[in-house]
Amino acid sequence: MEVTRRNFKESLNAVYSALEEADFLAIDGEFSGISDGPNVSALTNGLDTPEERYSKLKKHSMDFLLFQFGILSASQMYITKPFNFYVFPKPFNRTSPDLKFICQSSSIDFLASQGFDFNKVFCQGIPYLNQEEEVQLREQSEERRHQHANGVGTPSFISPSSKGPAHVPEEHKDFINRVIFVHMRSFYLFLIAFFCSFPTRFQRKLIYQTLNWKFPKGIHVETVETEKKERYIQVIKVDDEERKRREQQKREREQEELNDAVGFSRVIHAISKSGKLVVGHNMLLDVMHTIHQFYCPLPEDLQDFKEVTMCVFPRLLDTKLMASTLPFKELITNTSLAELEKQVKESPFKSPQVETAEGFHSYDTAQQQLHEAGYDAYITGLCFVSMANYLGNAHDRADPTFKTLFLMRIIDIPYLNVTGPDLQPKRDHVLFVTFPKEWKTSDLYQLFSAFGNIQVSWLDDTSAFVSLSQTDQVQIAMNTSRYAESYRIQTYAEYVKGKHQNKEKLGQTPKSWGEDGWRKPHYASATSAATFGYPRGLRKRSISPVQGEQGSADAPVTDGWSNYSYPDSAGSKKMKTDGVYSACSHTADGFRDSMCSG
Amino acid sequence: MEVTRRNFKESLNAVYSALEEADFLAIDGEFSGISDGPNVSALTNGLDTPEERYSKLKKHSMDFLLFQFGILSASQMYITKPFNFYVFPKPFNRTSPDLKFICQSSSIDFLASQGFDFNKVFCQGIPYLNQEEEVQLREQSEERRHQHANGVGTPSFISPSSKGPAHVPEEHKDFINRVIFVHMRSFYLFLIAFFCSFPTRFQRKLIYQTLNWKFPKGIHVETVETEKKERYIQVIKVDDEERKRREQQKREREQEELNDAVGFSRVIHAISKSGKLVVGHNMLLDVMHTIHQFYCPLPEDLQDFKEVTMCVFPRLLDTKLMASTLPFKELITNTSLAELEKQVKESPFKSPQVETAEGFHSYDTAQQQLHEAGYDAYITGLCFVSMANYLGNAHDRADPTFKTLFLMRIIDIPYLNVTGPDLQPKRDHVLFVTFPKEWKTSDLYQLFSAFGNIQVSWLDDTSAFVSLSQTDQVQIAMNTSRYAESYRIQTYAEYVKGKHQNKEKLGQTPKSWGEDGWRKPHYASATSAATFGYPRGLRKRSISPVQGEQGSADAPVTDGWSNYSYPDSAGSKKMKTDGVYSACSHTADGFRDSMCSG
Repeated sequence: MEVTRRNFKESLNAVYSALEEADFLAIDGEFSGISDGPNVSALTNGLDTPEERYSKLKKHSMDFLLFQFGILSASQMYITKPFNFYVFPKPFNRTSPDLKFICQSSSIDFLASQGFDFNKVFCQGIPYLNQEEEVQLREQSEERRHQHANGVGTPSFISPSSKGPAHVPEEHKDFINRVIFVHMRSFYLFLIAFFCSFPTRFQRKLIYQTLNWKFPKGIHVETVETEKKERYIQVIKVDDEERKRREQQKREREQEELNDAVGFSRVIHAISKSGKLVVGHNMLLDVMHTIHQFYCPLPEDLQDFKEVTMCVFPRLLDTKLMASTLPFKELITNTSLAELEKQVKESPFKSPQVETAEGFHSYDTAQQQLHEAGYDAYITGLCFVSMANYLGNAHDRADPTFKTLFLMRIIDIPYLNVTGPDLQPKRDHVLFVTFPKEWKTSDLYQLFSAFGNIQVSWLDDTSAFVSLSQTDQVQIAMNTSRYAESYRIQTYAEYVKGKHQNKEKLGQTPKSWGEDGWRKPHYASATSAATFGYPRGLRKRSISPVQGEQGSADAPVTDGWSNYSYPDSAGSKKMKTDGVYSACSHTADGFRDSMCSG
Repeated sequence: MEVTRRNFKESLNAVYSALEEADFLAIDGEFSGISDGPNVSALTNGLDTPEERYSKLKKHSMDFLLFQFGILSASQMYITKPFNFYVFPKPFNRTSPDLKFICQSSSIDFLASQGFDFNKVFCQGIPYLNQEEEVQLREQSEERRHQHANGVGTPSFISPSSKGPAHVPEEHKDFINRVIFVHMRSFYLFLIAFFCSFPTRFQRKLIYQTLNWKFPKGIHVETVETEKKERYIQVIKVDDEERKRREQQKREREQEELNDAVGFSRVIHAISKSGKLVVGHNMLLDVMHTIHQFYCPLPEDLQDFKEVTMCVFPRLLDTKLMASTLPFKELITNTSLAELEKQVKESPFKSPQVETAEGFHSYDTAQQQLHEAGYDAYITGLCFVSMANYLGNAHDRADPTFKTLFLMRIIDIPYLNVTGPDLQPKRDHVLFVTFPKEWKTSDLYQLFSAFGNIQVSWLDDTSAFVSLSQTDQVQIAMNTSRYAESYRIQTYAEYVKGKHQNKEKLGQTPKSWGEDGWRKPHYASATSAATFGYPRGLRKRSISPVQGEQGSADAPVTDGWSNYSYPDSAGSKKMKTDGVYSACSHTADGFRDSMCSG
């Protein structure tokens, strides 16, 4: 079902009931860009720590817009309901935040080549507010109502001086007198005045104040905005009862408008509240964007992010991670969503018998509509069902709470553990190498040619991590490099130590969100103190690690999947994986997968 | 004529001949946003200096995208040709700049409400390069050709080690052997390999190198990209002649692709080269964006900007400025483009008899299509013709080179003088006031109520300029404020002095362009040193002020228009204007005008 601003309200009940009857949900987002840093490979080093990766994604990805959101609800017997929402932060009114977002030309061009409909996003996108914005708007509305009840005409222009006759500056006197004069002569009139920008905002204030002072009773004054955004003041002579009735109407209209402004966030709140298992493919960015846009600005700290994530999505499952770990990693050669979908249709998997509920768009997987969020959510759901069926515990598939998110292109930490500490793989075999900026990967291969297989993870123009295949080669490499002039080698441990010392030296003041001025939306009149951090109604929880012992796993890559005790199924056999390279062996194709999509 | 990527090449000749036959041109741009600062009124203080205004616009507006460009060419007897170009920085290839641009929700929403077609921009927008990007791409292409001529197979993967047999890392040996094995068996084959991201880029290098080493002659190797952006390597067995022919073809194709990439910039170069009078309405932002996108990053310094502007647009005329100055300011009450267009149809103006050339879209001004760049350029042209006709020098209308740009919402400096020093109005009657952040405009009116008319120009939450109507009131205000605790008053002169001292203290290191990382596009392999500043082929010119004496005008607002000696016409009578407020009296409606449009 395609949902835009036009049919959003009438679709909400269908969404709610789909969520309620769902066995599990699959989600996907499409973004206006992926990374605003120099380039993706420079940003995502293969030996990032989870903290580094989170902080890079937060810094370089959150200013893009998630503008299409797909939800698949799948209930017992695989009756599916795919939704495809278009989302856009249309400003609610003139004082509400005017969000700026970044577009990345390559991402926009890519989506365009896939037939993405930008007009639907920008012209018909469903608005939304995060929790802080919602609270502020509701407070402002309350405040206006309160002031109105106290007999002050229009709320946005309150100042101590407005209680007496308004002070009308000389150059506006003519205008105001004309307005009032007109009113005196006619008892029932529509006074139409066009207002476009700040000087007339002031005139509007004067009219309100003067009318209010001259006619404290007996008239109803209201600013009305036409569809063309022209504003006029409506002045109607009314008796007391009529005045009350009109004010009640106005209040109800305001409440309705407020709910409309919360818009798509209501859907996300409903998903969160449902507590249902939420499945996504390579979904870390989807989760981050969802929290960032519809709940609250992302916290600085990874641990805090995990806690917010647990609050918003209590049960998460990443199909890319699932496909990359045992038993699937031996069956699936390419974990990109498009390829995975093809592979789980064939032996040893079985195509699941899914049906699309009546009234919903029935996707045809033979005619791929990849990178439409609704379609991507749909096939993510199919992939999950196929893999869960393979494990033979189709009925329990919604039970385990995996709570790990795939970390793309980190060599030895395949996932982010949302419920506890992350893996801390040994990196004894890793060297930190600095060299002249002319060097290329081939120069590093040549330098280390005596050591057999190496893996190079670039850090910047003049440094890289080099992973040797044998830890005992490290000392040899260090010894031979001792007298080298053009390059320098440190062990990973030395590198980490040096980095920490540097941080301490620099005082480590992390750049705060919103420092760049335009990033943080703000209200023109921020009346409420913003003591806000976590989604409303959700307290910080302290979560004890479920799989604590994993943190000090011997093998750099543990089999995270089977390890997470998939209940009494074929998948629960615990096996050691085949070394450092295996974890990223399926991710070669992952970049396309991450382009504009989770 | 609507021009997108699809019909750009076939339309170019029509554009060139329209420029050639034109008497004057009118231009207009539509942007993805206006200001990324807190809000427009905070950014554009009414007492900005021209330097401050330029620097604010540069800092807070240039990261938006100009994505629609309108050109009207008007020739003798008013035969007009309107063009409406859709423009988008589609990345040329994987190593070319991947531009990020900001979208402002309110601007996007506004354009959407006007029926703007975003799909045309993003899916069919004409690409472009600025001069530095063009030079770099051409150099890269030359370099590749040079290397190729020296017998190195593929140019993007050159490294010293590639001249011998490629060093093939263990884990890739299988793959490469398979590739080479296939080639050995078949003499004419299409070797298809899909490449998606950086690990396979490396494999591609290995294939090229190995093939090159094993078969230095007799094969033609080429990477081909399908429309779906899948890349494969084409290997064809050829004799020497065929090989040369194919290489020649390839080179020509590359040149053609390069010209396509320069794209819309060729139109701007042609406008510039034509030397024709270019008319725009409130066109400062249009000029800034045009230079920024199609020529070079904007210079830090206002004086340098003026010089670049003179190079790119040797003759400029701003119809908003024209309408705001004598004799028109007494005839025209609202200088927004839409209102101006209505007013110049009526007495004392005459609707000009314009005709649209055959084959061009004939706009109907009764059915306004405002905020389509082509339409806005069209009616800007109409307004100019009407006003020029009124002055009675229709035939000379293209002669004067006004070279001033309207400065919206600066009280006493109505324009930027492109050819020389700007006005330096006396601000003896201006006070700089600081106060508690709870204060509103009404509090300032109250504070200064004894002084009659005042004008408040907000600077931030706790400070504002207050212009008194009489200079001799300044000392009284200063005296009465001496013992005030909640607020503080300085004269304008004291304020300026304090600011300069502060700057000196801070060392005044201006933030350099590109400091934010993502703002400045960059090449993956930046081979050429970027010693670039001015449009190629255009030297810095030293320009002596034409109207130097204006800089010290007595009246805060001089009549810039008639002063510019519009030749022997009704408009050349020099009159004093009516004081401080007059200069902005017509700009109340200007904000809507500036929304997404020049």
